[in-house]
Amino acid sequence: MKNDLIHSDESVEDLGRDGLSIIQKKDGFRFGTDAVLLSHFAAEARHRKIVDLCTGTGIVALLLSARTRAEKIDAVEVQEDIADMAERSVIMNALTDRIKIHCHNLKSSPELLGKTVYDAVTVNPPYMRADTALLNESGTKAVSRHEILCTLEDVIASASALLKPQGHMYMVHRPSRLADIICLMRKYKIEPKRLLTVAPRVGAAPNLILIDGGKNGGRELKILPTLYVYEADGGYTLGIKKIYGTI
Amino acid sequence: MKNDLIHSDESVEDLGRDGLSIIQKKDGFRFGTDAVLLSHFAAEARHRKIVDLCTGTGIVALLLSARTRAEKIDAVEVQEDIADMAERSVIMNALTDRIKIHCHNLKSSPELLGKTVYDAVTVNPPYMRADTALLNESGTKAVSRHEILCTLEDVIASASALLKPQGHMYMVHRPSRLADIICLMRKYKIEPKRLLTVAPRVGAAPNLILIDGGKNGGRELKILPTLYVYEADGGYTLGIKKIYGTI
Repeated sequence: MKNDLIHSDESVEDLGRDGLSIIQKKDGFRFGTDAVLLSHFAAEARHRKIVDLCTGTGIVALLLSARTRAEKIDAVEVQEDIADMAERSVIMNALTDRIKIHCHNLKSSPELLGKTVYDAVTVNPPYMRADTALLNESGTKAVSRHEILCTLEDVIASASALLKPQGHMYMVHRPSRLADIICLMRKYKIEPKRLLTVAPRVGAAPNLILIDGGKNGGRELKILPTLYVYEADGGYTLGIKKIYGTI
Repeated sequence: MKNDLIHSDESVEDLGRDGLSIIQKKDGFRFGTDAVLLSHFAAEARHRKIVDLCTGTGIVALLLSARTRAEKIDAVEVQEDIADMAERSVIMNALTDRIKIHCHNLKSSPELLGKTVYDAVTVNPPYMRADTALLNESGTKAVSRHEILCTLEDVIASASALLKPQGHMYMVHRPSRLADIICLMRKYKIEPKRLLTVAPRVGAAPNLILIDGGKNGGRELKILPTLYVYEADGGYTLGIKKIYGTI
């Protein structure tokens, strides 16, 4: 049964948590540290209804199903073949009662999924502006990496519309976009509340940020202790081991 | 001669750099790490004309005179007794040809000092909102710590007016105000370019931020490696020792 779910150009990766696994293209976009960190950053007991935008292969939705007691996780992916792969991962993990994959542009999500109905929105959006996309990149990868089908403003506007009045938006992105993110969040009534910077090692500049914005929240941001990925000796830090669940 | 410059309720502190010293009230607001970090963060060879707002006892202006080759450093302090103390520190250090202390509210600085004339603005403003001032704080300390005579928006609006079209604004503040700072900078055409977070030690949350904004700059922020003040053994880190010039 399981084998019928997996195409010849795909592989199954064990997520090392609660027996979860995920289908990915052998030569396509594979999930990374950013998705694992995002699911950890967003996991809070009070979230009962979550929507994951730009879900890709569904990695954040799958991890959130294990990390939270959310009753309902909607996951939105605009690319049909990727959404189909995510859907098959949900079936493979027997999570169809909790996770539903939707294939549409997130700009339509408030209309299609409902306004002010979610406790939390998670999103690992394309990091780069559309104008930096290389012409020779394959279409699927280019859409995952660049703001071709949705801009950062589209992501934040949709998130704001989807969230309940006191809901939270969790996003992972590049440090270079922090000012854009903060200004756009405020524009759409999402107040930045927590900022986590992630750097390869002590002394290195952060290469990822995670931001938690509270809809209609008070104006006070907390910057968390910098999370480092590697120790000086090249091994993972305790913080990363805890997040990956191997300690 | 020097002794005439120092009042009985004041003391002179050696700044440990280029023979500089500063006059401070024995029981008043004394300069801290934030001022030293700000002068280091802002010191760039290209800055020929600098204005330091909220200069207090003049600490940042004095340190910038040693750290840069700026021909002219204007320093603005609204409180008369503090401005007088800063003025006497400038005389004591024989820096009257390079540093000039001005006593007025920084809201009037563009009008009084000139618009679009400075390469750099530095500012270590009051960190707390006016509504958090305790009634039993002394007037001088309360004005230095709280936004009583000027708000964060006043500071950024004045800085923007004072700066040349490609000038830079350097500010030290608390992490909790980062979103306010970024949004106000953009409102006044100052683009956040570099963000330095400062934390007591690895694993601790930052308690200071330094931000460098470029007037009319491109939209790309660089978050620098987190600067730690103390090693695990309680001694200063190499980074801090370098900034304090003791190594």
